[in-house]
Amino acid sequence: MTDYLKPLDAKALEALSITGWPYGYADRVRFHELDALNHVNNAVFVRWFETIRVQYLQDYGLTEYSLTDADPTLVVRAQTTDYLAPMLHNESKVLTARTRLLKPTSFIMDYGVFVDGTERATGSAVMVSLESDGKTRRAHKPAALRRIIERDAPETEGL
Amino acid sequence: MTDYLKPLDAKALEALSITGWPYGYADRVRFHELDALNHVNNAVFVRWFETIRVQYLQDYGLTEYSLTDADPTLVVRAQTTDYLAPMLHNESKVLTARTRLLKPTSFIMDYGVFVDGTERATGSAVMVSLESDGKTRRAHKPAALRRIIERDAPETEGL
Amino acid sequence: MTDYLKPLDAKALEALSITGWPYGYADRVRFHELDALNHVNNAVFVRWFETIRVQYLQDYGLTEYSLTDADPTLVVRAQTTDYLAPMLHNESKVLTARTRLLKPTSFIMDYGVFVDGTERATGSAVMVSLESDGKTRRAHKPAALRRIIERDAPETEGL
Amino acid sequence: MTDYLKPLDAKALEALSITGWPYGYADRVRFHELDALNHVNNAVFVRWFETIRVQYLQDYGLTEYSLTDADPTLVVRAQTTDYLAPMLHNESKVLTARTRLLKPTSFIMDYGVFVDGTERATGSAVMVSLESDGKTRRAHKPAALRRIIERDAPETEGL
Repeated sequence: MTDYLKPLDAKALEALSITGWPYGYADRVRFHELDALNHVNNAVFVRWFETIRVQYLQDYGLTEYSLTDADPTLVVRAQTTDYLAPMLHNESKVLTARTRLLKPTSFIMDYGVFVDGTERATGSAVMVSLESDGKTRRAHKPAALRRIIERDAPETEGL
Repeated sequence: MTDYLKPLDAKALEALSITGWPYGYADRVRFHELDALNHVNNAVFVRWFETIRVQYLQDYGLTEYSLTDADPTLVVRAQTTDYLAPMLHNESKVLTARTRLLKPTSFIMDYGVFVDGTERATGSAVMVSLESDGKTRRAHKPAALRRIIERDAPETEGL
Repeated sequence: MTDYLKPLDAKALEALSITGWPYGYADRVRFHELDALNHVNNAVFVRWFETIRVQYLQDYGLTEYSLTDADPTLVVRAQTTDYLAPMLHNESKVLTARTRLLKPTSFIMDYGVFVDGTERATGSAVMVSLESDGKTRRAHKPAALRRIIERDAPETEGL
Repeated sequence: MTDYLKPLDAKALEALSITGWPYGYADRVRFHELDALNHVNNAVFVRWFETIRVQYLQDYGLTEYSLTDADPTLVVRAQTTDYLAPMLHNESKVLTARTRLLKPTSFIMDYGVFVDGTERATGSAVMVSLESDGKTRRAHKPAALRRIIERDAPETEGL
């Protein structure tokens, strides 16, 4: 299995029978992620999507989380999750992420949760890029734009 | 302010300037619900929706969580959250829930988060009622159906 | 029952058969606090101690969490928890806190979790007051010192 | 770096400058483990100790978490945590565990959190082995006893 600490690219994911995703990481279900029904709790999937999103935003160069004016404030405006099958303790999972739609000051991401190449859940998030006032829209960093287009090949609008 | 332990009905919610909701409860943002950006973390809203949903399912009689065959297995099939404004430490919030669409073996719920009568977030969940095999659809309890229709006045389909 | 939003003083706690505690609040066990064994997870008790500690630190005037130099950085140096009996979904609990030992730049707090006047868990935390450098010790605010002594009657050392 | 999914033994830990520990795993601090002070929250360390404990209990054969009579109910009776230095986002950590004291129906475990070979936190837990009634003491499985003694070389009492 792959190292949690090393992101997986499209090729590494394909080797795990996961196609169409440019970015991922492998991990395992921990005890505290289960709820009283002995399944991974539904809110935990949202946590997972956050974990890979934060990693993705840094790796693609959208933000360094400096909490200074050098970085935009990236805000989750809306989120969806679809639960396809329950997940159990100790299952090895691969989490995936990509940008589906890219606009000058916003983007939509998709997420996936895979076990043995089968999708257990999917999700999406509408992300908005703001100035530190939390209101004014702010353009993405050019280098990040280029990386997203090159790696994820998203739909674009207004670019 | 109202007691966490006592659910709020439509009339009590209207007294708090929250109209159109049959069910709610008051609470306060706790320190551990904040993330490194000093706002309530986006996954925490999903937790809140779960908390009021579990309460609602019991109060309306859909399940007693007996984990026996006397109760259906109620599964979240899909979820959405819209984030309208950030939430801060110690803010007093009112969480609301209602059934928007009712079918024989499923239903769609809406959720709201209010501070001083203003909506900070909304959400929805598609719920499915199953037998303990986790596959076969199971009809809602008749008494619960009646309560939902009487209190929430949802759209219905197939009833 | 009492309002979550209103802290309980010694007299209000005594009315709930909880004696020897100057500060508390009432709440209820939520679904997401359970783990796969259908009990409140042991880490959740530590969350509860944090929640009442943050409330206490503000109410007693030790900090306003301004994140500026007007407030000390209050750090948990060590913590203990004793688990006396399992806790279940929907149980109404009272959480209590007090300062047991007070020194010029540190203090030790005790915590309790009660259901129907019976203790389910206890805990303690060693707290240190620091400058914003995270290293230099910083004296407590005089008004907070007075309140702790008056309300909690702790042992003192070096005061 | 090592794979999250593969436990580290004494030799692998020594290669990471961590001596005196028979069992560990490597991981990384995730965004949701931070609190509003931008450090790993103190309750999260207790989560980490739980994660490695559950793994350890399975790997050493103390329980398979079958939730049947084939396994004891292993209960945390008390816990301590010492916080030595703050932990930050994305830091690579190694979590360690060992049994310090072994008795016929209970044991005491120690835990450590290391970054670059330096200890950031330590902890301990008093564990009790019970029958499914949650009251009667139950002897450890002989094979697990042998493994603990062989790998961890704990103090023993009554064995």
